Amino acid sequence: MRIEEFSTVDLDENANGLYIIDQTLLPNETKMLTLTAQEEIWDAIYKLKVRGAPAIGVAAAIGVYLAAREIEADNYDEFYAAFMEKKAYLASARPTAVNLFWALDRMERSVAASKDKPVREIIAVLHDEAIRIRDEDAEVCRAIGKHGLPLIKDGMGILTHCNAGTLATVRYGTATAPIYLATEAGVKNLRVYCDETRPLLQGARLTSYELHENGINTTLICDNMASIVMKNGLVDLILVGCDRVARNGDAANKIGTSGVAILAKHYGIPFYVCAPSSTIDISLATGAEIPIEERSPDEVTEMWYKERMAPRGISIYNPAFDVTDNDLITGIITEHGILRPPYEDSIKKIFGNS
Amino acid sequence: MRIEEFSTVDLDENANGLYIIDQTLLPNETKMLTLTAQEEIWDAIYKLKVRGAPAIGVAAAIGVYLAAREIEADNYDEFYAAFMEKKAYLASARPTAVNLFWALDRMERSVAASKDKPVREIIAVLHDEAIRIRDEDAEVCRAIGKHGLPLIKDGMGILTHCNAGTLATVRYGTATAPIYLATEAGVKNLRVYCDETRPLLQGARLTSYELHENGINTTLICDNMASIVMKNGLVDLILVGCDRVARNGDAANKIGTSGVAILAKHYGIPFYVCAPSSTIDISLATGAEIPIEERSPDEVTEMWYKERMAPRGISIYNPAFDVTDNDLITGIITEHGILRPPYEDSIKKIFGNS
Repeated sequence: MRIEEFSTVDLDENANGLYIIDQTLLPNETKMLTLTAQEEIWDAIYKLKVRGAPAIGVAAAIGVYLAAREIEADNYDEFYAAFMEKKAYLASARPTAVNLFWALDRMERSVAASKDKPVREIIAVLHDEAIRIRDEDAEVCRAIGKHGLPLIKDGMGILTHCNAGTLATVRYGTATAPIYLATEAGVKNLRVYCDETRPLLQGARLTSYELHENGINTTLICDNMASIVMKNGLVDLILVGCDRVARNGDAANKIGTSGVAILAKHYGIPFYVCAPSSTIDISLATGAEIPIEERSPDEVTEMWYKERMAPRGISIYNPAFDVTDNDLITGIITEHGILRPPYEDSIKKIFGNS
Repeated sequence: MRIEEFSTVDLDENANGLYIIDQTLLPNETKMLTLTAQEEIWDAIYKLKVRGAPAIGVAAAIGVYLAAREIEADNYDEFYAAFMEKKAYLASARPTAVNLFWALDRMERSVAASKDKPVREIIAVLHDEAIRIRDEDAEVCRAIGKHGLPLIKDGMGILTHCNAGTLATVRYGTATAPIYLATEAGVKNLRVYCDETRPLLQGARLTSYELHENGINTTLICDNMASIVMKNGLVDLILVGCDRVARNGDAANKIGTSGVAILAKHYGIPFYVCAPSSTIDISLATGAEIPIEERSPDEVTEMWYKERMAPRGISIYNPAFDVTDNDLITGIITEHGILRPPYEDSIKKIFGNS
């Protein structure tokens, strides 16, 4: 899965299928799938064979295009009704994934804007929109990489948390994009430390996998080892992704990110959040307004659903995300450039004063 | 395993055996063992059926007493030679456990001091010394609990890391002692947060088990959730154990402790290290002189030795301990009272100026 040759999610034009890497088998098995039946595509999203907000959006766009191809309709109204059914079916695969709806809504708008076209042409419009969604994702990630690139020098140690990598996007990832572009640009002797990221171990299973596959010197640590690695002077830069950024710069990301940011501040290490501008939500004044998903206790107590590793009867707290306060963030790297504090101002410059 | 009725490790006088709880089966099964054969005792220490520095020391003292009972010798020299063989055999069970040697050396000194006694009486001396080592451990822990008790008020949230509990000692534990004594004293509505403590999950398997068994409201979190729990105002006090303290107060403890201390400082939460004075090593100027054991990568990559969860070929860093700098420590609770900064002075007051 070398970055140059690899897409996490793509349209297979020959097979008319959704092409993905089955992430549930990583890192033990690297298996590519081409899914043609709608039930298979639904299942792949539901079972996290494809995961990561941007990648899910692209998979849904391609999936609903493939579904639309199978619609037999004589006129727009018939087509639209059938399309909406296919859309609702795919949307039901992960009802909390914002990017899934975002991509499907965008596909629906393409249909609505093609009301006067024959059905065959609407299919072509949907094809092009799916391809556009796919390509924009890779372009945004590459732009984030380009803006982050000057932060990275020969011999640096970089720490990251969770998987904001190629596997969460079409290509490059967000937090990993500056690393991949640095390698491409000939920066040498990078060392990347991956927090394993309990409970679901995306850092162990996915980030260390994709970095290692791309020839980057990768060291896996448990989350609680970040402090000693920083203390030992091994980390010069921290890059993390994010799920949502408030207009004051507070950033929600995978659980544990705020702890990494506090350690970084303590040890004087720059801490950057890599964020497509689509994740910046200017309707939110601060991170306190970002709802935190709480997930099943089983993720903490059963590893791989085999042996329970905590006593029954105790409470389990399993928040999926936390908010990193803006004063802990050195910069927010977007596809438009690096935002600097005060974020209220730098974010306004991107979004205007709306 | 209610504290009042329970010893993690004890001498079974009727069976002439070492009585332990098999910690490898926790929390899924609570099984008490009485071990009489020396090979069984060796195996129990080797396989971590009994673990925690103080508990290992007590198990070794009892184990070598039981072994000495089986010696057939007509005079001191014969007895001493056989005793030293038994001692060396037990010492080989965990060659890096300092308390194992400390307890066995103390037992050897009892033999040496009884040179002029008949063999039967030397056995009686060894019996009494093993019992003394056992009882002193519980007394030291209880004294730590007594000194820590005033820190705990009704309704507090307390966070702890790893297992510095009853299961690591004969009774009470070190970090847990103030909690158990507070409950005994009628302090109400305590909530304890247990870091699961990767990679070996002592917090999930052991600490949450013993606290829950003793009726304490216990919530298990992944290590990377400590920040959000503190941020949400749920933690008023942090109590951790330690393996070794330098004379400036720098404290080595289970990996991740220094990170918890940095979070505590950031959120303004008192952070106390609970330390029998035997763990304070005044020969060390600072924590930088404390060697950090690095353990097998398998502990990080294979959970329960079933399915590998990280790609092959990457590096793994698996330090077992880290050092918490003295400026992050609010106080060090010993059996003699709470030491306060500057530790160089408060530690001198305990040890004199030697």
